[in-house]
Amino acid sequence: MVSSLRLPTLTSLFSPSFTRRFTVSLRRRLHLRPPLAAGFSAQSAASSPPETEDQFDSKKSSRVQDRGNTDRVITPRSQDFNAWYLDVIASAELADYGPVRGTMVIRPYGYAIWEAIQDYLNVKFKETGHSNMYFPQFIPYSFIEKEASHVEGFSPELALVTVGGGKELEEKLVVRPTSETIVNHMFTQWIHSYRDLPLMINQWANVTRWEMRTKPFVRTLEFLWQEGHTAHATPEEAEKEALQMIDVYTKFAYEQAAIPVIAGRKSKVETFAGANKTYTIEAMMGDRKALQAGTSHNLGQNFSRAFGTQFTDENGQRQHVWQTSWAVSTRFVGGIIMTHGDDTGLMLPPRIAPIQVVIVPIWKKVDEKTGVLDAASSVAETLKTAGLKVKLDDTDQRTPGWKFNFWEMKGVPLRIEIGPRDVSSGSVVISRRDIPGKQGKVFGISMEPSILEAYVKDRLDEIQSSLLQSAISFRDSNIVDVISYEELKEAISLGKWARGPWSASDADELRVKEETGATIRCFPFEQPQGTKTCLMTGNPAEEVAIFAKSY
Amino acid sequence: MVSSLRLPTLTSLFSPSFTRRFTVSLRRRLHLRPPLAAGFSAQSAASSPPETEDQFDSKKSSRVQDRGNTDRVITPRSQDFNAWYLDVIASAELADYGPVRGTMVIRPYGYAIWEAIQDYLNVKFKETGHSNMYFPQFIPYSFIEKEASHVEGFSPELALVTVGGGKELEEKLVVRPTSETIVNHMFTQWIHSYRDLPLMINQWANVTRWEMRTKPFVRTLEFLWQEGHTAHATPEEAEKEALQMIDVYTKFAYEQAAIPVIAGRKSKVETFAGANKTYTIEAMMGDRKALQAGTSHNLGQNFSRAFGTQFTDENGQRQHVWQTSWAVSTRFVGGIIMTHGDDTGLMLPPRIAPIQVVIVPIWKKVDEKTGVLDAASSVAETLKTAGLKVKLDDTDQRTPGWKFNFWEMKGVPLRIEIGPRDVSSGSVVISRRDIPGKQGKVFGISMEPSILEAYVKDRLDEIQSSLLQSAISFRDSNIVDVISYEELKEAISLGKWARGPWSASDADELRVKEETGATIRCFPFEQPQGTKTCLMTGNPAEEVAIFAKSY
Repeated sequence: MVSSLRLPTLTSLFSPSFTRRFTVSLRRRLHLRPPLAAGFSAQSAASSPPETEDQFDSKKSSRVQDRGNTDRVITPRSQDFNAWYLDVIASAELADYGPVRGTMVIRPYGYAIWEAIQDYLNVKFKETGHSNMYFPQFIPYSFIEKEASHVEGFSPELALVTVGGGKELEEKLVVRPTSETIVNHMFTQWIHSYRDLPLMINQWANVTRWEMRTKPFVRTLEFLWQEGHTAHATPEEAEKEALQMIDVYTKFAYEQAAIPVIAGRKSKVETFAGANKTYTIEAMMGDRKALQAGTSHNLGQNFSRAFGTQFTDENGQRQHVWQTSWAVSTRFVGGIIMTHGDDTGLMLPPRIAPIQVVIVPIWKKVDEKTGVLDAASSVAETLKTAGLKVKLDDTDQRTPGWKFNFWEMKGVPLRIEIGPRDVSSGSVVISRRDIPGKQGKVFGISMEPSILEAYVKDRLDEIQSSLLQSAISFRDSNIVDVISYEELKEAISLGKWARGPWSASDADELRVKEETGATIRCFPFEQPQGTKTCLMTGNPAEEVAIFAKSY
Repeated sequence: MVSSLRLPTLTSLFSPSFTRRFTVSLRRRLHLRPPLAAGFSAQSAASSPPETEDQFDSKKSSRVQDRGNTDRVITPRSQDFNAWYLDVIASAELADYGPVRGTMVIRPYGYAIWEAIQDYLNVKFKETGHSNMYFPQFIPYSFIEKEASHVEGFSPELALVTVGGGKELEEKLVVRPTSETIVNHMFTQWIHSYRDLPLMINQWANVTRWEMRTKPFVRTLEFLWQEGHTAHATPEEAEKEALQMIDVYTKFAYEQAAIPVIAGRKSKVETFAGANKTYTIEAMMGDRKALQAGTSHNLGQNFSRAFGTQFTDENGQRQHVWQTSWAVSTRFVGGIIMTHGDDTGLMLPPRIAPIQVVIVPIWKKVDEKTGVLDAASSVAETLKTAGLKVKLDDTDQRTPGWKFNFWEMKGVPLRIEIGPRDVSSGSVVISRRDIPGKQGKVFGISMEPSILEAYVKDRLDEIQSSLLQSAISFRDSNIVDVISYEELKEAISLGKWARGPWSASDADELRVKEETGATIRCFPFEQPQGTKTCLMTGNPAEEVAIFAKSY
């Protein structure tokens, strides 16, 4: 079981039966709410059947065997990435099934990660001149039909309200899958002159897409997101805005989520239904599949022409506005889990961790308890005052070893241990989540507030960079430069990303998808120098594209 | 026109045609988006007809005449409270129609007020031990039917999704009108032992109720709110929680929104569908109608019995949990408008104002412009650094007088004027929104940062208290103590609230409603001393109740 749950490092403190005890406790705790089954997407009724161990067992017999033999709680990542992902979400209490197929309840710990994403982006959106507002979620069906490629892209995924207040509605209402149509309906009433431009807004909202294959956070029937919508007087301004926002997302991914996304432009085939250009950030997950983690669309005049969103320019001429839209969703939480997690569970970058430091007080004798708890509270207070997110786990219903494992599984970046000897010496023991075992553990850090605060903040910064660096190394060692379709196929078959020059047709792109399962994730902004020859056709190519299998 | 748009106070700065010019400009500006018609609730089609002046004219002929004769933009509050309310919402750009009947687009300025409400309450919820999370909005129809009085209360108002992904659904889905049912479905999976209690969560979400008579912010088909849900081991804990949360709302109302709500308990007739007890905060609007501004419900075991939400207590016995739920919605924004607004428009309490201070630079000659703008920017920077929300209105497309009126209409608490003479003397002119004309204007306040900051903060504090004091005076002068049904009827017919001892039946309560239009708003927590005799029956009464007409 060593591979899935690390043994406590302070075993001397515990009775010999400790190891068994804490895993049993942990299992019991987890059994309170059985893990999300891999069949999240496989339910067929509108309401899911009650979750039982039986259902779980029948679907995941291999895992059940693991658990039966080894008390393993989280399937090792290397063994079954998908099972690991669902186990982590269940064990760390990030999310749970909703009663309706494909819906998800975001639990407090998962929601706190989303709040960290919101807190950062909300400030950046305002700094870049956007205002928050709120559009109704019910959209008349006729709106969706106005933009030709939009209706084609979204109509298979719509949820429709047909009854309201006990009556059949004259016009069925779409539960918003995205808001370009209703936004344009309103923009048309607010925009009249060039003085009303640019109009730059954002909303935090829920959206609904009737997906057939769902997966917690990554693809759910209803999800939370922000959607920015802007209108401009010129195509240049719209293009600049679309690029600015993908840049905001890129910085967020690198600096906060420690995810080294590759930013670039989508191929025509992969462009948003209704956009001229789609910019994207593509993240490599731990299984090397790509996750589209955020997009920014240059909509051109597609929606303004469909909805008649016009303004009078400085010369008195009527013009259609140029628009953008851009979005990041709760899918990003899935990206964080799948980028940094390991066999032990979740591993959270300090800047988005709901708990950055967990403090575990350790005592054996009753007369030690007060001194240890006082010191632990004082350390917690010091770090909270320094602006850190701190959890003092002072329950006496669990052993320290149980707590170590529990908070490691929850991905808390730093752990502070305080025992009677530490109290005497005025110091603490600090362990890093990202460096397992003794290497990640440092003894004798002074409790003196200024020293401790500086030490903890430095370590958190180190962990933040270290997670990013690991992810960069992983990403770079799994992207293969290819110059032929054969090489592309080989790279994809090895589970890697292929990067190669591309100027072939949409049909060729679809052929690659059919034959390899990989799609063009993007034409990256960062392009290699030199002349390029299309890997498929041998014709000159202007850009390399990245191909990968994706979520 | 003096009554609706105050004349600029610095007339000497402007050409004689200024008055006419700025009102025309303002009208033109407002015409960009015609005001919300009083018929917000009267639209019958799923999609509203395009908003035109014609539609507006045909519905509000008296106002159109006013506007034609006097250039009046906002109907005086005293003349037509409802028209005034809709005019303020339109002119201050707080909200607009959605395309679907009864839906509302919350525009940036209105949304910023909601964000101020969220920012305050979110902190208080966390301080009192609640975690945010998110439940899906689609609820299987069968859930709604499980709690008898809940289905009775909500079924007439449901929006139903019957088609998803192009297919008729096996079970129709309710778009959440409130989440007690789905919350209990999940709580049942998470709660097992007394150790799992209390479970205290909150979500910020949209909800849908198919209302027939709608009014922006006050009652819309879809609205935004927070809904807290808690589960406890004992009825005492649940009761304490329900009372704690109504207290959080009460403090918010008094201290942030400057609304002197009356907190109390709802009568049985007015209790939430599914609750044992409903606590409420009732606010008196400018037309003296009551607005239920927040509620907190003690749900007892009604939902836990319907959904089987049980725990094992310390003695090993299975028990149903005791629950609460509590909510505040975007309706509160309507309450703020209708409590503080006046003929000039909106008046916002500084603590929830999106802009607390507007700075209007004033210059005539080109060579004055730079000096004035530099000083204005510097003042803006000083106040922003001091943590205040500041808007520098430095456009040269509008006259200062236009700006004065515009920002007064938007309810900004303080205005700072800076002209060439102020620059020379190193001082500014400061005007209070809550004190019209010269009385509210002070000259010669030093620009020196520490002096200016202290002065502005003191004035904002004064305005905050002054708005509360005015609202308290208004409230208290409009509540009549009554001892008989005759007196009650008279008070209600005068548009006032009636407070009197009540121990009569539900039937008597409904009779009062039928005969006077007034309902029991609450049995206030603050009760007069002494023996009481029921105003209706002459029987002994334990409490006084407050009766009023309400929104």
